[in-house]
Amino acid sequence: MVDAAGGGEWLVTSIGRSTADSISVRGHDLAHDLMGQLPFADVAYLLVAGHAPTSDESRLFNAVLVSLADHGLTPTALAARLTYTGAPEAIQGVIAAGLLGGGSVFLGPVEDTAQFLAAALDGLSKRDRDDPRRLQEAAKAAVNSALADGRRVPGLGHPIHKVADPRTARLFELARDRGLEGPHMRLLDLVASEHRRATSKPLPINGAGAAGAALADLGFQPFIIKGFALLARTAGLIAHLAEEATHPIGMRLWQEVEGRASRAED
Amino acid sequence: MVDAAGGGEWLVTSIGRSTADSISVRGHDLAHDLMGQLPFADVAYLLVAGHAPTSDESRLFNAVLVSLADHGLTPTALAARLTYTGAPEAIQGVIAAGLLGGGSVFLGPVEDTAQFLAAALDGLSKRDRDDPRRLQEAAKAAVNSALADGRRVPGLGHPIHKVADPRTARLFELARDRGLEGPHMRLLDLVASEHRRATSKPLPINGAGAAGAALADLGFQPFIIKGFALLARTAGLIAHLAEEATHPIGMRLWQEVEGRASRAED
Amino acid sequence: MVDAAGGGEWLVTSIGRSTADSISVRGHDLAHDLMGQLPFADVAYLLVAGHAPTSDESRLFNAVLVSLADHGLTPTALAARLTYTGAPEAIQGVIAAGLLGGGSVFLGPVEDTAQFLAAALDGLSKRDRDDPRRLQEAAKAAVNSALADGRRVPGLGHPIHKVADPRTARLFELARDRGLEGPHMRLLDLVASEHRRATSKPLPINGAGAAGAALADLGFQPFIIKGFALLARTAGLIAHLAEEATHPIGMRLWQEVEGRASRAED
Amino acid sequence: MVDAAGGGEWLVTSIGRSTADSISVRGHDLAHDLMGQLPFADVAYLLVAGHAPTSDESRLFNAVLVSLADHGLTPTALAARLTYTGAPEAIQGVIAAGLLGGGSVFLGPVEDTAQFLAAALDGLSKRDRDDPRRLQEAAKAAVNSALADGRRVPGLGHPIHKVADPRTARLFELARDRGLEGPHMRLLDLVASEHRRATSKPLPINGAGAAGAALADLGFQPFIIKGFALLARTAGLIAHLAEEATHPIGMRLWQEVEGRASRAED
Repeated sequence: MVDAAGGGEWLVTSIGRSTADSISVRGHDLAHDLMGQLPFADVAYLLVAGHAPTSDESRLFNAVLVSLADHGLTPTALAARLTYTGAPEAIQGVIAAGLLGGGSVFLGPVEDTAQFLAAALDGLSKRDRDDPRRLQEAAKAAVNSALADGRRVPGLGHPIHKVADPRTARLFELARDRGLEGPHMRLLDLVASEHRRATSKPLPINGAGAAGAALADLGFQPFIIKGFALLARTAGLIAHLAEEATHPIGMRLWQEVEGRASRAED
Repeated sequence: MVDAAGGGEWLVTSIGRSTADSISVRGHDLAHDLMGQLPFADVAYLLVAGHAPTSDESRLFNAVLVSLADHGLTPTALAARLTYTGAPEAIQGVIAAGLLGGGSVFLGPVEDTAQFLAAALDGLSKRDRDDPRRLQEAAKAAVNSALADGRRVPGLGHPIHKVADPRTARLFELARDRGLEGPHMRLLDLVASEHRRATSKPLPINGAGAAGAALADLGFQPFIIKGFALLARTAGLIAHLAEEATHPIGMRLWQEVEGRASRAED
Repeated sequence: MVDAAGGGEWLVTSIGRSTADSISVRGHDLAHDLMGQLPFADVAYLLVAGHAPTSDESRLFNAVLVSLADHGLTPTALAARLTYTGAPEAIQGVIAAGLLGGGSVFLGPVEDTAQFLAAALDGLSKRDRDDPRRLQEAAKAAVNSALADGRRVPGLGHPIHKVADPRTARLFELARDRGLEGPHMRLLDLVASEHRRATSKPLPINGAGAAGAALADLGFQPFIIKGFALLARTAGLIAHLAEEATHPIGMRLWQEVEGRASRAED
Repeated sequence: MVDAAGGGEWLVTSIGRSTADSISVRGHDLAHDLMGQLPFADVAYLLVAGHAPTSDESRLFNAVLVSLADHGLTPTALAARLTYTGAPEAIQGVIAAGLLGGGSVFLGPVEDTAQFLAAALDGLSKRDRDDPRRLQEAAKAAVNSALADGRRVPGLGHPIHKVADPRTARLFELARDRGLEGPHMRLLDLVASEHRRATSKPLPINGAGAAGAALADLGFQPFIIKGFALLARTAGLIAHLAEEATHPIGMRLWQEVEGRASRAED
């Protein structure tokens, strides 16, 4: 097709197609090959990657999403609940408001860790990535460079899980069991050790960091990893929405804040 | 706890809790009982319902989400892609913009069908809901009332799948196989027949309607059903985001629209 | 222009146009006729209505926006602040999250009042709208119908300004002074009296209701009136954003909520 | 007030306060001192800055907002229109979706220019900022550093206004006339000259850059400047919403895109 502005096939998609009596997704018949055959998260994987995960990849991928779904009464959950207080008729706005807080502070570490590891691996050949010595050097260089610039090393430390984040050990265990621990996860492990050595502060790998590394080893790019983190978080937001509808917090929180707030102009 | 505004325990959540070395979700240990054990969608179900689905329920629930994930270059996907054109650095905004179009026109039918069926079932005892004659009467009354008021009956008809929506037969088949076809799905079937009889227009049950009825039979309320539809759609939006990053449509679409648009003030 | 799908000029806009050396908005030269000549809100009016307000209309229109801009630590402001806590790098997401709570509960009354009044005026000729007796009858019918159906009459009552909302008197005064009090404002006044008579509860006209009626008398439709309410609110959200950046509330609020929240599964 | 988490007055706001019979904003009585007295944009300025603009500042500030309000059928306007196609019942979602595209590509230049100029001025004393030679050196250093790093200099160049952006001359004229051209605007002028010298490419200062510099000279920080750009854009989005409701583009655009799109899996 040639568009008005001149030139070429730009209006192209390879995600899916429909005819009067069939729907296909990435070349699979939706009704017969996917519905009832693949779990939802595997179809999300298929939609993005263009191919379905193996059963091992599926297990790790699902575990990562599960690890990111729950989040308690975080700012994003509170923002969603407060949005429900004002606009209970527009559920899409409630979920959207909750996701919008998934930025650099809260969901960022998942993406940031993937980005940090990808940058540290950049330039290493496939063979180098499998060489523990090279990986060790890359970890050391990345940590030292971050510390020298006063940048935080992402994926380390957690305000509550100060000694160990229970999600981390589980993700590493699942990946190792299935032979899916790739250069990103191995590098993250080395980064944590190097960081401990360089700072004398033993910071554990947090769940967000482990999740980012695992998704990177599954072949996803950092911005897509952020997308999957948002997908996982959406599940938690629906739970908060359901709870808010039956046990509302938003209205009472507002009343309490309004009542307690000092007015600086007084 | 007594809050400042006086009175009672309102700051309560039963979704999850964390301690220094454990995280629990709806009473299950996240790392050991959920990660690597339950698929992501089942954890979404657990988060919302408070209990995990049975394996039959899981199969139907996953199939519903899968049926709603793909949607082609719809207005919501285009809105997300155009948002990426302007703000590629804020993926949460891209997903949020895509979800915001999930309102009465596009994702609404899932929720509207559940609402319509729930209203028609309202007042029927458990026993009546299992009685085909009563259900038939409820279908007839609901259809006639809608037609008399000039309201559309939700869940029927599709612009492309004019004869049959392939997702519908599959969802009914999965539900029947597993003994999960409840009063909402059975009623929807009867509603389609009554509508055909009353209007002489044979409109098939569309995938959105079947999805709404199936989720209602799984025990979810209409606004939560809308939430799950948004969760499903998020997977598709990530796929569009991934494709937009490598094969951009947004910028070219803008250029073409700007170039072609007539200016009425001319 | 004929589009691919066949048929006619649909890709048309009359809002503005640009050439290499000029920009026009609704037929006015942006740089010379609008910048430095018209206040911003008047250009907003022009963009939507297609013509600039008279100076009297401008004064009333600006006063309405001013009346809606401030809102304290409402759920929408809190949602915006909490979104900033999580995503301080994406200001557009902070503002968007704040606006998303502007639904049926908080900004809705502005639109709902306009809608209620428009419905009550529907069917009245221009002459009838100027006839106090007819307007009185319309007010009575609208109030009685709402009360009979158990619907709230929008635009009446305020949780803090229980006797009188200071914005209301001011908007009516400004409109009367300028000869801009039209059928919507007059009807709202009568609606408040009828409601008092019918219920024996003296509820004052609230600022939101007066704002909705004033914008309706300026010729705007209910959904556009909602749009202007969101424009006004955006100003307040920027102020909360500025304050949040220097005196953060979001992070402390989160910590306090997390610390105080009871866990129902305990 | 001492909060549960221990320590200090954190729940403080100085934006506004309400009692049963009055509302004050930044110490002004809303109904009597602001409504009908100050234009809306001046109240936005007051809300954020804590003090109202002088009449000269008001004129420049309003002109900046006016310059940013119109934007044609840009990706953000299209995203808003497509969101209206799917969710016409939730206007707040339509506006929010439109704003979410106001990121690094489209509205970013306003903020980026302010940020670039602030960084270049950083370290210069008040006296240095008034010294044309010092400013010249700062411009040269900033341009050379950007070019050496392969970074774009923000605020220069425009795809349509290739020779001169009509908004730029007007903003500089308004600022000079009123004695409001401060170090940011003067520096931007010098940056454009230095860039031309260094690259031999004569790129004009674009309207976004001039707007960012003008708001910076009015004393606002870059992230607040982004906020005001979003406020301005909201006016344009309401105009697109109004036009979409009467002359819809979204649905036809979708149909055309769906019809024309090639399917790569074919």
